[in-house]
Amino acid sequence: MSEVLRGPVHVVGAGLLGTSIALAARRAGLEVWVSDANPEHVRTATGLGAGTTAPPDARPQLTVVAVPPDVIAPVVAEALERGGVVTDVGSVKAAPLARLAEIVSPGWLEQYVGSHPMAGSERSGPLAASPALFDGRPWAVTPHATSDPDSVALVTALARLCGADPVELSPEQHDVAVARVSHVPHLLAVLTAGRLADADIAHLALSGQGVRDVTRIAGSDPALWQQILGANRGAVTRLLREVQDDLDALVTAVDGADDDRLVGILSRGVAGTRAIPGKHGGPPLPTAAVYVAVPDHPGELARLFGDVGEIGVNVEDLRIDHDPARPVGLVELLVREDAAEGLRDALEARDWTTHR
Amino acid sequence: MSEVLRGPVHVVGAGLLGTSIALAARRAGLEVWVSDANPEHVRTATGLGAGTTAPPDARPQLTVVAVPPDVIAPVVAEALERGGVVTDVGSVKAAPLARLAEIVSPGWLEQYVGSHPMAGSERSGPLAASPALFDGRPWAVTPHATSDPDSVALVTALARLCGADPVELSPEQHDVAVARVSHVPHLLAVLTAGRLADADIAHLALSGQGVRDVTRIAGSDPALWQQILGANRGAVTRLLREVQDDLDALVTAVDGADDDRLVGILSRGVAGTRAIPGKHGGPPLPTAAVYVAVPDHPGELARLFGDVGEIGVNVEDLRIDHDPARPVGLVELLVREDAAEGLRDALEARDWTTHR
Repeated sequence: MSEVLRGPVHVVGAGLLGTSIALAARRAGLEVWVSDANPEHVRTATGLGAGTTAPPDARPQLTVVAVPPDVIAPVVAEALERGGVVTDVGSVKAAPLARLAEIVSPGWLEQYVGSHPMAGSERSGPLAASPALFDGRPWAVTPHATSDPDSVALVTALARLCGADPVELSPEQHDVAVARVSHVPHLLAVLTAGRLADADIAHLALSGQGVRDVTRIAGSDPALWQQILGANRGAVTRLLREVQDDLDALVTAVDGADDDRLVGILSRGVAGTRAIPGKHGGPPLPTAAVYVAVPDHPGELARLFGDVGEIGVNVEDLRIDHDPARPVGLVELLVREDAAEGLRDALEARDWTTHR
Repeated sequence: MSEVLRGPVHVVGAGLLGTSIALAARRAGLEVWVSDANPEHVRTATGLGAGTTAPPDARPQLTVVAVPPDVIAPVVAEALERGGVVTDVGSVKAAPLARLAEIVSPGWLEQYVGSHPMAGSERSGPLAASPALFDGRPWAVTPHATSDPDSVALVTALARLCGADPVELSPEQHDVAVARVSHVPHLLAVLTAGRLADADIAHLALSGQGVRDVTRIAGSDPALWQQILGANRGAVTRLLREVQDDLDALVTAVDGADDDRLVGILSRGVAGTRAIPGKHGGPPLPTAAVYVAVPDHPGELARLFGDVGEIGVNVEDLRIDHDPARPVGLVELLVREDAAEGLRDALEARDWTTHR
């Protein structure tokens, strides 16, 4: 890396992402300045230890623009005018870059490199912030044709400092990628959930974990998503047209009892779930699930994890399938495949009811 | 309830569902007989404690048919011939009933009541079985026009004995309901996953938790789903045509920058996520999330849950957002809204890093 991130870092926009980045930079010992159009947000963020207010004429090494999508370009332009390297953390990269190129001189663009941490929350605002928000998440770094390599290195260093895994893509490639792995999945979750909105309550009573998982992200803020989708109109529309073709083929297969075609579509879905990489791009570790029935009161999860800890098996992931009104929940422990059988036996020996 | 479930219960088909029901009935002290076209499955199931092989000429109080969708009707007919009340646990109800009505005399149909436990697993076969499989899950009981009320009561009693929550619907209403809350969500997950199957690996590297949740159920067995969808062709096709209309409207809104229409579609999705009831049909309890950074080695989850247990807060649900290759995972604890703040403070006091 040819440039070291030493600070000061100026975070413009003290919402969830901006404040979380500021907290992570402070955690690393850097000087951090925070500003926001809303002075309340600045007070909250600095009160949380996210740095200090920006001094009037100081020049940061790096400015991080964390404002709503519609105002990214003018705020980046202002930051370039103040000097130093500038990045933003918006969900879409090509459209804001094009708008920026219209309002700043070409030479200044060298100091700008877009980026996009793949992290967030259903919550927003500085109070929801955490320096741990980016731990282990992908963070797209999106240099354009004239980005200075030192600027790219600095933004990559910011992603690493926040605990994220930088993934370098062009702005256009980034937008195609997020259309596929984020925007279109979001919209299909929205369509699935939309079909439940006016459903009979007796029908909805049959809802299981599957439909809950498929529709969870459809609960996000419509106003924010309207801005995100509006800025990535081209890539999202192209992909949605492909989904229209897929859906037409599916309707033909189901309605026409074309079982070969239907199995082909279902199998392609299986292939798609397997294409999602482990978070570092490598193949996922082979894991196996161990299910444990757990009585639903405070001490029991503790006792279970105490026992799992003593048994010495590391839990890769877990899920509680659980009903607050019932006395027993079911905990699914995902462990390394070669550890599952031993864990089951050891838990049964400690009087837990397990199944595979 | 006018009829008490005393047994014997005869389970025909010793797969995941059949063996789990047999184990639950044994747990309740009933006499249980198990049969299967595959003698290996019977050996495995009875070896697990799921009952004994069926005596040659004995008459069960209740027969539970747990065979693949395509052979449910003839196997139910055979069971009706042997006597007693008969239910099946297939995922679709109207088509097998119509086929059954063609092959048995109308009087016999009084002893048949379809049912459908909303539980399962990515795994199949008797080795994956558990008497806890149905705990807290909905279990549709689907009497037809001439089902005897005593037979309905007996099948309802079976659902309760297995720990499930019976939901009574006509076979036709059931099929419309599962098309909406299960089959169409499954297919939209399949289409979402299908669009990932040939995606660029660098693009897939940006995959976050959202797309993983949306696509998880698309990993299920295509051959089984082809049978399920084939048996519910009418209801699924009708609903998919509505989704085609929704998708057309969505493409028009995104492509045409019709922001009002787009926000309308997104808001309908939010309403849909809120329409899914708590598992007992009541409103979900208000909960709040507490995030905790947890070092990734065996003792740490135990220590966390030990501390949570000592603090005395009950965890309603949780999720680990976790990367096997990194030293820290993020655990999301969902707790009663009024307990969240106290839990955060108490965890911070015990040196955990938390955020909201």
